[in-house]
Amino acid sequence: MNEIQDLLKELKQENGTKIVFVVADGLGGLPQEAGGKTELEEARTPHLDKLAKIGITGMSTPILPGITSGSGPGHLGIFGYDPMKYRIGRGVLEALGIDLKLKPGEVAARGNFCTIDEKGNIKDRRAGRISSKEGIRLVEKLRMIHIPGVEISLEPVRGHRFIAVFRGEDLGPAMNDTDPQKVGVPPLIPVGKDESSKRTAQFVTNFLTQAKKILNDQKQANMVTLRGFSSLCPIPSMTELYGLNACAIAYYPMYKGVARLIGMNIADFEGEWDKEASVLKKYWNDYSFFFLHFKGSDTTGEDGNFDKKVAQIELFDSQIGTIAEMNPDVLVITSDHSTPSLLSGHSWHPVPVVLVSHSCRPDDVESFGERSCSHGGLGHIKSKYLMSIALGHAGRLRKFGA
Amino acid sequence: MNEIQDLLKELKQENGTKIVFVVADGLGGLPQEAGGKTELEEARTPHLDKLAKIGITGMSTPILPGITSGSGPGHLGIFGYDPMKYRIGRGVLEALGIDLKLKPGEVAARGNFCTIDEKGNIKDRRAGRISSKEGIRLVEKLRMIHIPGVEISLEPVRGHRFIAVFRGEDLGPAMNDTDPQKVGVPPLIPVGKDESSKRTAQFVTNFLTQAKKILNDQKQANMVTLRGFSSLCPIPSMTELYGLNACAIAYYPMYKGVARLIGMNIADFEGEWDKEASVLKKYWNDYSFFFLHFKGSDTTGEDGNFDKKVAQIELFDSQIGTIAEMNPDVLVITSDHSTPSLLSGHSWHPVPVVLVSHSCRPDDVESFGERSCSHGGLGHIKSKYLMSIALGHAGRLRKFGA
Repeated sequence: MNEIQDLLKELKQENGTKIVFVVADGLGGLPQEAGGKTELEEARTPHLDKLAKIGITGMSTPILPGITSGSGPGHLGIFGYDPMKYRIGRGVLEALGIDLKLKPGEVAARGNFCTIDEKGNIKDRRAGRISSKEGIRLVEKLRMIHIPGVEISLEPVRGHRFIAVFRGEDLGPAMNDTDPQKVGVPPLIPVGKDESSKRTAQFVTNFLTQAKKILNDQKQANMVTLRGFSSLCPIPSMTELYGLNACAIAYYPMYKGVARLIGMNIADFEGEWDKEASVLKKYWNDYSFFFLHFKGSDTTGEDGNFDKKVAQIELFDSQIGTIAEMNPDVLVITSDHSTPSLLSGHSWHPVPVVLVSHSCRPDDVESFGERSCSHGGLGHIKSKYLMSIALGHAGRLRKFGA
Repeated sequence: MNEIQDLLKELKQENGTKIVFVVADGLGGLPQEAGGKTELEEARTPHLDKLAKIGITGMSTPILPGITSGSGPGHLGIFGYDPMKYRIGRGVLEALGIDLKLKPGEVAARGNFCTIDEKGNIKDRRAGRISSKEGIRLVEKLRMIHIPGVEISLEPVRGHRFIAVFRGEDLGPAMNDTDPQKVGVPPLIPVGKDESSKRTAQFVTNFLTQAKKILNDQKQANMVTLRGFSSLCPIPSMTELYGLNACAIAYYPMYKGVARLIGMNIADFEGEWDKEASVLKKYWNDYSFFFLHFKGSDTTGEDGNFDKKVAQIELFDSQIGTIAEMNPDVLVITSDHSTPSLLSGHSWHPVPVVLVSHSCRPDDVESFGERSCSHGGLGHIKSKYLMSIALGHAGRLRKFGA
């Protein structure tokens, strides 16, 4: 916990109000040309703009100024968990995302099928983005691997992705990725940074050697890399800290993983963003907090496609009216980090935020964009304060001191 | 180190980009009359205004709100070193500024020749600002002083200024200045705050007694004061923390001292501000980080001369175009603290900052001034985040978390 969370835990009170957080992943952007409009500024977003008019806006910094946030820490911050304190590895997040039941002491890693050439150098870090069906077939082959002293669980995710979990006596997660993050070089050898992680590294090396043999006859997916070795660390739930009964409405595994980690229930539904508003309606009476996640603004930003990101933001906007109609006591719309299409990746730029509540103080901002929200009444805040601000507006916090 | 520096050290990556920080000392100001223009707002600064248009602006607080910063901490903050953590005395800074090789355990102090009257009260704290030649002659006389148990090094600086370094067994730096910072009173007696500093205080008292005798026949410089007693404390270099190979282009000793302290190389050149852009060009290929320092905005502010400060700011602006033409990946222009001519001294007011980079998010600010930058897209930040923001824009930081 951190200072603000200690306080929230102390001051929380139940009053039956409902809070909705809507996260457009990687929403923050940049103009294509100096001085131009960002993707969000370019997009036609009547519903978001309406909220900016009636609500209070501002800019939110996910980690610290200048620091680019991954999706995990970006979301933890939004939910009030200081991402500098709760450092959760990719392996754990993705394992939780596919509902793998991890226990403390188990080491999880994210796996990629990749293509290596005859010299053993990586040619394609994603094995030509093989299909999910092919991924499932190959994971099944790898399940043949048995190593005395360790139990290995493998689960396919999507396409070339899978999760590996290593269970055994005294295994540590402190080791490097084997994915070198570039082509033309061989996968890296895992090296443990402490005694228990050295034990894990030995098992992992053995696993990789056997995987290479088993995949030897494949054309594309003839090797694997592992990264984000990590173990579950204890983290208090949103119920314990804030007294909220929380539900996540998300369709990407990783975001379900973050949500599950902090004690949210995961709404079970088919479909993507277009279904989330109706899922919200369906579960409306069952929870006091909802987290809705939209992915399209991040993937199109990662692809460096300005126009497609604009279109995805307009798609995002199209559901905002329906969500707002549910009339939550507090509605917050923001993002976990910026993903400017100019940079084709996550960035350090702050993200816009709007909060709507009957008790929000109005500001002069009339549209939802990076430039406009930087003048907003919330000012420039760290994302870890969004939750306390929302709880305050929901009347869910008692007075501090007499 | 502090939280942000730990993170930068962990996330740093080399990518060949260049960062330039230009510091106009004491730039921040105040209007002469309520509601009027500040010195910076009054000055004609076409080059700075152009950067404000294409870059992102904001306000930077050197230490904490309401706290007036000295030049040392002001600069440390700009370079990402929390000035609350690294407290470096004036003596150390000035000693480093003239390339005196200090070792931990040695005690350095800044000395001033001053004028005392027949009662021993200070009449002029700067001895009528004697010439450098005269200063050198008098320092030579003081070198006659020998005290058993301590080795004393004296070095002239400029005019009435010199540095004294005390070397010996178990010497501490914790003692008061002997400069009372006003006239009509005698110099203060140095009192050590702990055992080892009491030892130093005895040696210093002995030194001052002998100095008074030796200078007795001088008309102006008939006494000395010492202040800023301090010892070197370990401080990590910019290379270690940020992976930057840094060069300082400055003509005042103290700023060279700060720069040297954190591992910058000091560019060797004759002349002042008007030469710095050409020195930048000369060393362009040798470094990844440059710090350029301009002094005139501080000295004119200290003198309480509004019009001269305006003129100095225009002189500062005249070189900005040439510096910007070098097209660094990130250009930051800011200040170490405010020195409003209205107050004839340093002040607590935040200072304007502008950052220019291909990945900076534009804001609505069109001119470089205190009023305009307070609406800027960077918001109001602590100066210790300027470095992380610059490193982010330079692409020199890996992503935090998955």
